[in-house]
Amino acid sequence: MSQATKKATEDDIRPGETAIDLPPAQDAQLRFIGRIRTPFASRTDCPRQGDPDGPECRIELDPEWAPALDGVDRAERLQVLYWLDRARRDLLTQSPRGSDGTRGTFSLRSPVRPNPIGISSVKLLRREGTVLVVRGLDCVDGTPLLDIKPDRCAHGTRPDGA
Amino acid sequence: MSQATKKATEDDIRPGETAIDLPPAQDAQLRFIGRIRTPFASRTDCPRQGDPDGPECRIELDPEWAPALDGVDRAERLQVLYWLDRARRDLLTQSPRGSDGTRGTFSLRSPVRPNPIGISSVKLLRREGTVLVVRGLDCVDGTPLLDIKPDRCAHGTRPDGA
Repeated sequence: MSQATKKATEDDIRPGETAIDLPPAQDAQLRFIGRIRTPFASRTDCPRQGDPDGPECRIELDPEWAPALDGVDRAERLQVLYWLDRARRDLLTQSPRGSDGTRGTFSLRSPVRPNPIGISSVKLLRREGTVLVVRGLDCVDGTPLLDIKPDRCAHGTRPDGA
Repeated sequence: MSQATKKATEDDIRPGETAIDLPPAQDAQLRFIGRIRTPFASRTDCPRQGDPDGPECRIELDPEWAPALDGVDRAERLQVLYWLDRARRDLLTQSPRGSDGTRGTFSLRSPVRPNPIGISSVKLLRREGTVLVVRGLDCVDGTPLLDIKPDRCAHGTRPDGA
């Protein structure tokens, strides 16, 4: 697929989808705190969701945040938040690839949403200074990092056992 | 505890904590898409984490996003993202209440973090138009809503069974 075709596919609306006419967002500011390095060079290379047995990826935290990593390796699994900076934000309904139906944005985990924040649960393999080496990410190489939290879902603290 | 004392406690640094000197955030803009109504009037009323058997809470989506809810009730559990607008953002290390140690921000799920985005897994009880009635939230009444996603963690798609 040529670069031009790919771009058109990513930005166009599919049949049945609807969009909202949005003014510029101005409610709260995010701060990028690092970058995520993955083997996925473009969005079409990315898996639909992170695979716990997938390739090693690197979470490169900006050095000024180093002290905030203290104790992070107590958790086997981390929740990683990142900004899907190439995703459009105005779709109300979407027709996902490989699906013949159209559904509301909030019933999907598509990157296309009013606040395109991606969340993955990853396995921490090791820490190398301000870099965390993990498995389980699904985002494109260079994705801006927003946050790292211990994964509560994996900690078994959910009384329903999930 | 008086209002004045409470405020000082919330904004002050505790012994052992460290902060970073931050310029204003300017990397990406969030858009608030609604409000979360809970019985928790102040941060001190909030539980440490959402309780699946806790009180009913209401996710009030702004009406223009209504079509994006189509199909949302297929999921029993939703992941709700919200903006912890009262949290300071500059702490590198923190000494959580009830703990005698100081740990890095990224090893904690404290609201205090560079991008104060809260994530809760909630049980969807019912939908009333653009309002979702749920259990399992832990945030203060009036918290700005950022996103709603089907909860992958609860869908059993994690091969480790979590």
